Amino acid sequence: MRGYRAGRLPGRQDWSSWPHYQAAAAGFRGYWYPVCFSSQVGEKPRPVTLLGERLFVIRDRGRVYGMRDRCPHRGVPLSHGDKQFPGTISCVYHGWTFDLETGVLKAAITDGPGSPICGKVTQPTYDVEERLGLVWVYVGDGERPHPIDEQLPEELVGNPAVVGQRIQARAGNWRFACENGYDEGHAKYLHRTALWRLFKPMPVWNTTSIVRRGRWIYRVQREQFWEADFPGLGRWSGTAWYKARPPRTVQNIGNTASHRRVNPTIAAQEFPGFASVGMPGVLRIVYPTFIHYEFYVPVDAENHLYVGMLADFSRGVRALPFYAKYLGAVRWLFHGQFSGQDKWMVEVTDAPPEKLYRPDDSLLRWRKLAEDTTEERLERLRAGNTD
Amino acid sequence: MRGYRAGRLPGRQDWSSWPHYQAAAAGFRGYWYPVCFSSQVGEKPRPVTLLGERLFVIRDRGRVYGMRDRCPHRGVPLSHGDKQFPGTISCVYHGWTFDLETGVLKAAITDGPGSPICGKVTQPTYDVEERLGLVWVYVGDGERPHPIDEQLPEELVGNPAVVGQRIQARAGNWRFACENGYDEGHAKYLHRTALWRLFKPMPVWNTTSIVRRGRWIYRVQREQFWEADFPGLGRWSGTAWYKARPPRTVQNIGNTASHRRVNPTIAAQEFPGFASVGMPGVLRIVYPTFIHYEFYVPVDAENHLYVGMLADFSRGVRALPFYAKYLGAVRWLFHGQFSGQDKWMVEVTDAPPEKLYRPDDSLLRWRKLAEDTTEERLERLRAGNTD
Amino acid sequence: MRGYRAGRLPGRQDWSSWPHYQAAAAGFRGYWYPVCFSSQVGEKPRPVTLLGERLFVIRDRGRVYGMRDRCPHRGVPLSHGDKQFPGTISCVYHGWTFDLETGVLKAAITDGPGSPICGKVTQPTYDVEERLGLVWVYVGDGERPHPIDEQLPEELVGNPAVVGQRIQARAGNWRFACENGYDEGHAKYLHRTALWRLFKPMPVWNTTSIVRRGRWIYRVQREQFWEADFPGLGRWSGTAWYKARPPRTVQNIGNTASHRRVNPTIAAQEFPGFASVGMPGVLRIVYPTFIHYEFYVPVDAENHLYVGMLADFSRGVRALPFYAKYLGAVRWLFHGQFSGQDKWMVEVTDAPPEKLYRPDDSLLRWRKLAEDTTEERLERLRAGNTD
Repeated sequence: MRGYRAGRLPGRQDWSSWPHYQAAAAGFRGYWYPVCFSSQVGEKPRPVTLLGERLFVIRDRGRVYGMRDRCPHRGVPLSHGDKQFPGTISCVYHGWTFDLETGVLKAAITDGPGSPICGKVTQPTYDVEERLGLVWVYVGDGERPHPIDEQLPEELVGNPAVVGQRIQARAGNWRFACENGYDEGHAKYLHRTALWRLFKPMPVWNTTSIVRRGRWIYRVQREQFWEADFPGLGRWSGTAWYKARPPRTVQNIGNTASHRRVNPTIAAQEFPGFASVGMPGVLRIVYPTFIHYEFYVPVDAENHLYVGMLADFSRGVRALPFYAKYLGAVRWLFHGQFSGQDKWMVEVTDAPPEKLYRPDDSLLRWRKLAEDTTEERLERLRAGNTD
Repeated sequence: MRGYRAGRLPGRQDWSSWPHYQAAAAGFRGYWYPVCFSSQVGEKPRPVTLLGERLFVIRDRGRVYGMRDRCPHRGVPLSHGDKQFPGTISCVYHGWTFDLETGVLKAAITDGPGSPICGKVTQPTYDVEERLGLVWVYVGDGERPHPIDEQLPEELVGNPAVVGQRIQARAGNWRFACENGYDEGHAKYLHRTALWRLFKPMPVWNTTSIVRRGRWIYRVQREQFWEADFPGLGRWSGTAWYKARPPRTVQNIGNTASHRRVNPTIAAQEFPGFASVGMPGVLRIVYPTFIHYEFYVPVDAENHLYVGMLADFSRGVRALPFYAKYLGAVRWLFHGQFSGQDKWMVEVTDAPPEKLYRPDDSLLRWRKLAEDTTEERLERLRAGNTD
Repeated sequence: MRGYRAGRLPGRQDWSSWPHYQAAAAGFRGYWYPVCFSSQVGEKPRPVTLLGERLFVIRDRGRVYGMRDRCPHRGVPLSHGDKQFPGTISCVYHGWTFDLETGVLKAAITDGPGSPICGKVTQPTYDVEERLGLVWVYVGDGERPHPIDEQLPEELVGNPAVVGQRIQARAGNWRFACENGYDEGHAKYLHRTALWRLFKPMPVWNTTSIVRRGRWIYRVQREQFWEADFPGLGRWSGTAWYKARPPRTVQNIGNTASHRRVNPTIAAQEFPGFASVGMPGVLRIVYPTFIHYEFYVPVDAENHLYVGMLADFSRGVRALPFYAKYLGAVRWLFHGQFSGQDKWMVEVTDAPPEKLYRPDDSLLRWRKLAEDTTEERLERLRAGNTD
C-alpha cells in the first residue's frame, strides 16, 4: 500500500507482477471445481468443459466418473456414446469401449473379442467427488489430488447445512468474475440500484483492511460514510427517505444482527460477517443467518460458470424458513437480478491495461494470495510430490 | 490518361502507388465526420465507433461532448454509465466521474471525496460540433482541429438550406463506398434498373474529363452516347419507348433545367451540375433544383456509415415543395432503392487486385487527391503545427 | 497388416506418411466433380464453390459453361450479373462482358464499343460436362482434362441406367466423409440403430481383405460373426428376435440374391456386391438389384457436398419398380436417415491425432491408393503432359 499512496498504483499497464495469475487465463490447475448438480448426472454421459479441457461425467452404479471426451481412435466425442456394458462407455462410432474407472480400452466391439488393441490404449480419467449436491472434478497435472474436504470452506465440512444454489454459464474470464465478487468498491455504486438493496442504505465509501487468515483473506470495514460532499461537484448519498436508517456503528456485512443462528463451529467466526476469498476462486460472505458463496469456475479463457450458493446451518424444522426465504426471494433478487449486474460487468470488463485506485487493495491482495499459493504448489510439485 | 492508353493501366495488382490511401483502411485522420443526427444525442451517452475508435457523445446543458468510451480503471464502457453531476459522466461500475469538457477525473465516488486519484487521470476527449442537424466529431492526432466550416461544402456554410437526410450503417470499406459514389462508369449500367431512373434515358457511355478546383475534383461530361453497336455482339441502348427522349446537347447531371432555384452564391456554380468529390470522402452532385451529398464515414476497416443528404436553398414557403418531394419520393427511390444498389456493390467489391479501364480515371484522380492532400497535412504536422 | 499386429499401427499422430493426402484438405486437383443437378443450371449464373475456388456455371444455347466468379475489374462476383448478349456474361457493376467459351473480355459496355481494354483481359474458364443428370466441373492445374468417361465408374458409361439422387451440402472435411463411407468398422455399430437396418441383422465383426483392381480397391469379407463374448464384459449381438435370421454363408454386401437384374456388362462384376472406393473420392456398393454410389465433393477444407446416387440398369417398364422403391423408401431411409448418421460422424470427427485398429486397414489402403495415384499424376504433369 505504500507504493500506492506514493502514487505508483495508478497506471498499471499489465499483470506481469503476478506471472502465475496472468498465466491462469483458463484457471488454476490443482483444484476441485463444481461443474453441475449431482441430479444432472445420470446413466448418460454429460459433456463438461473445464479449464479448457473437454471431458464428460457419467454415473455408474451410484458413483460419478469423469473421462476425457475425445475418443483416441478418430476424435469423436465419447459423450455421444453410451454404456454397452456396466462400468464402461462405448464410442458411438465404432464401439470402442473404455473402463470408466481406469480408462483402459476393454473392447473394440467391431473388431471382435480378440482385438489386439484391447489393453493397449488408456483414456485419461478425472477424479470426481460429490458434495453439497454438486459434482466436483479435479483438474491437475498428474499428481494425486488432495482430499476435496481440505479445499471446501471449512464450515461446510462435517456441518449439516441446507443450501440453495444457482448455476449459470456466463461469458467473460473467471478472474474478472472473482475480482468483481471480492471488489470492495463496486458493490456500493453498481448495486445501489438492485432490488435486493431497495430498502437498505448503502455507504458512499468505506475504509477497509484486508487480513489474511490461513487459506482466506478477509475484508474488514474500518469506517463507513453514508454521505459525502465532492468538491466542485456536490453532495452524494447512499441513503433515501424510503430506505432504512443507516446503522450507527461500522457495518461489516452480516453483523447487523446476532449470529445466534449461524453454527458456532464455523471457521469464519473469527471475522463474522466479513467478506473473504480463497483459492481457486471462491467468495464467502457471512450474513447474520446464512452464508453466501460464489464459485467462479473457469470453463475456458473466455467463459466461466457462476455457482452461487446460500447455506443455512439450521437443522430440522428450523430449515423450513430458509427454503421459503431462498425460493421466495433470495434466488430471484440476490442470485438473480443483483448477481446479474455482476454478470454484466464481467462481460464488459477489459483489463489490463487498468488504473487501480485505493479500494482496489482488495484485488491486489487476492492476486497476491493466488500468486503465493500457486508458487507454493509448484514448489511442492517440483519437490516430487506427484504420486 | 496517356499511361492508360498505352496499356499500362489494366492489371494493377495493388494500391502501393497511393501509400496514404492504402493505409487509410479505417479512414483519414484529421477531419470532422458526421456520426448521427443531433436529435439522437440527449442526456444519456450514445456510443459511436469512428475510424476504429470507440467513443461516446452526450449532451450537457445544450452542448454535445465526445469522450473515449473506455473507463481507464477496468475497461468498462463509460457509455454504460450516466450523469451523476452536471457536466460529468460517471462509470456505472465504481462511479469514476470525468469532466466532459476536460476529461479530468473529478471524483471516484466509492473512494470518497478525498480520493488521491482525483486529478491524476485524464480521459481523452473529442471535439464535437453540430451542423445541418448532424453531430460531427473530429478525429485527429493531437493537433488542434481546423474549424468545421472550412471543411463543409462551401455552399452549406452561411446559406440557409433545407435538408432531407438518411443515415444507414453499411458493411464494406468506406473507400469502396466513396469510389463507387464518384465512379463514372457504374451509374449508367448498374442503376439503369433503378426505379429512380425508370423513365429517364441513360447513356451507354460518355467521354469525361476530371478537373480539380480547390478542394474538389469535378467530373465533366464531354460527349454522351445513347446507343452503341458492340462488334461481334450487337446493339445496346440506354433508351426505351417508355423513357424520355435523350437530350440533344451533352448532359452534365443537373443542367438539364435552369438553375434559377439553386442559390446563386454556391461555390459549386462554376461547374453547375457536375459531380464532385472531396476529402475525407464526400460526394456532391448538383441537380437543377437541389444538391445531393453523400458522406462516407469510416466506422472501421470493414464498415462505414452512409450519410445521404439533399439540400435545397429555397426559403420560406418555397421550401415546402422540397419536403413534399423528399418525403414523397426522393427518400424512398433515390436514398432508398437506388442507393441500395450501391450498398450491394460496396458489400461485394473486393480489390485489390483490380484491372482498371478508361472510365476509372475518376477513381485514379480521387485517389491522387486523397494522396496529395494527406501528404500536405502530414507535412504541416511535421512542421509542428500541432498546438 | 504385419506392422499393425506388431503394434505399430495404433498411436499414429499425423498423416505425414501420406503427404499428398495430407495436403489435399481442399480436394485433389485433376478430376471431374459433380456440383449440382443439370436441371439447376439455366440461363442465370449459378455460383459454385469447388476445391476452395469460386466459380459459376451457366447454360447457353443448351450447353453449360463454367467461369471464375470474380470480375477482374473490381472483384464483384460475375454470378450477380446476367447475359446481355448470347454466349456472354456481363458483370452487374459496369457491364464488363466476357465470352463464356474463351473467357475473353468482348466488351466493357460503359466504355463504349471502342474500349481499348477489350481483348486484353481473359477470365479463367472451367471445363464442364453433363452426365447422369449432373453437371461436372474439372479442376486442374492448366493441363487438358482427361475425358470424363475415363473417370466415371465403368458401368455407368454406355449403359443406360435409371438413377435416384440426393445432393446435400455438409459440414466437415471431404476426407472424413470418404473415409467414413469406406470404413469397414462403423457400419455394423453406428448404423445398427438406423431404420434402414431395422429388420436386418448386423454382424458384430468381420475379417476382411482389401484387393486393388485397376482404379478401385475392393473390400472382401472373409468371415462374419453375428455374436461375440467380450472377456470381462459380456455377450454382444447384432441379431434380435425381430430381425431376419443371419445368413449361413459369408455375406458380401448385395450378394444375398441373384445378380440377374444387374447389367452383366458392369465392370464391378468381378467382385459382385463388394464395396469399392476410387479417386477422387467415390464410393460404390453393389446390391443385388442396384448399385449405390457416394461422391464426396470438396467444397473447401471445411465443407463438402454429399452426392448420393442409386443406379438401376433395368430398362423400359422394368425401371418403374426402381422409381417406386427409390422414392418410396430408399431416398428417406438410406439417403436420408442412414446417411444422416454418417453426416453426424463426419461433422464431429477430429483427426489426426488418431489411433487406428485392425478394421482401419480399409482406410490405410484408401489413403495409399490416393497417394500412389496422385504421385503418378504429378509425374505425368512433370513429364510435360500438360497441353
